[in-house]
Amino acid sequence: MSKDAAEGFDSGDPVLEPIRRRWSPRAFSERPVDPKKLKSLFEAARWAASSANEQPWRFILAVKGEPDAFATALLCLRERNRNWARYAPVLAFSLTKTVYSNSGGVNRYAWHDVGLAVASLSIQAASVGLQVHQVGGFYPEKVRTTYQLPAEYEPVSGLVIGYPGSPHHLPPDLQEKERRERTRKPLSELVFCGSYGTPSDWEEETDR
Amino acid sequence: MSKDAAEGFDSGDPVLEPIRRRWSPRAFSERPVDPKKLKSLFEAARWAASSANEQPWRFILAVKGEPDAFATALLCLRERNRNWARYAPVLAFSLTKTVYSNSGGVNRYAWHDVGLAVASLSIQAASVGLQVHQVGGFYPEKVRTTYQLPAEYEPVSGLVIGYPGSPHHLPPDLQEKERRERTRKPLSELVFCGSYGTPSDWEEETDR
Repeated sequence: MSKDAAEGFDSGDPVLEPIRRRWSPRAFSERPVDPKKLKSLFEAARWAASSANEQPWRFILAVKGEPDAFATALLCLRERNRNWARYAPVLAFSLTKTVYSNSGGVNRYAWHDVGLAVASLSIQAASVGLQVHQVGGFYPEKVRTTYQLPAEYEPVSGLVIGYPGSPHHLPPDLQEKERRERTRKPLSELVFCGSYGTPSDWEEETDR
Repeated sequence: MSKDAAEGFDSGDPVLEPIRRRWSPRAFSERPVDPKKLKSLFEAARWAASSANEQPWRFILAVKGEPDAFATALLCLRERNRNWARYAPVLAFSLTKTVYSNSGGVNRYAWHDVGLAVASLSIQAASVGLQVHQVGGFYPEKVRTTYQLPAEYEPVSGLVIGYPGSPHHLPPDLQEKERRERTRKPLSELVFCGSYGTPSDWEEETDR
């Protein structure tokens, strides 16, 4: 029933399977996640690169096996996301430390480096059959007060984690969205040489 | 000669090999990179998740096979990075579109989502034997003018890409750094439950 993430991947170049298969479902199975498996996601995040090795990423984690903690986390999501996220077995929030620990100066890579960590986490998830749907639709101030964040930390995104499931319990518009093909801009709009907008010519460029 | 990135990875939980092996060398081999292989890195970036599927990431690419383009890119790096980056066969800059294409509103995930894409790129690199060293030590305004970036794009980081090599041409302090073990904070300082600072208890939490 769940969408095959490999569909729509039309590149001729071989890309690592969990990178190809990673996607952001809204339809999750209620199947619980083995704690060891879940831990491996955060291990993957932990080994990401970061500016000055600051490792600004932090995570708040809530699993369905702890119903009160799960309900509290769910309330931090906007209603439109709560409706589908409540079926997933794991919720999390990514946070970032906005200043460098050594100097106290603003870390302009604070959000970027959380992105590095969460991509590792998501690719690791895909490698063990899980998927992660990140949502910006949550209440940062609610996360801040609920989890008593120190002032120098900012909530970044919500993470809905689990095994992909059947979309039958989604409202019709989201069912349709769930089945839509993944789309991305072509490489010619993303990778440039010499000046912005001049597409890279892959063959000539590296031929020598 | 090159450091084994798997060293220092002490987790008992199995993490995907290219995630484990990814690191940020300063010692690169001059061995050129096959264009197909290089392209697969940007394919991996292309399929990353992003807020509203905006895909804010863009890349400027320069390979050593085009000496003028490579020299131009090298000049955008700060001197301390130029000294080691010049041995690598590929340089790139990540850029981000700071506003949403549909609404024109500020995209607060602009930098975060470039992080998602660059982590995919780096993990893909590690899966084919390459490594990526991201550097914040570059001249953003020089990148902007050199590559004629539209106003709504920001340079994010420099990417030095290639096969790890011998550190013999590095200055002594960097040789020492190159051989140092990778270190990361323990999970207990990164993943919390219920409130900031309360470590997740992996066993109890997901046991049901």
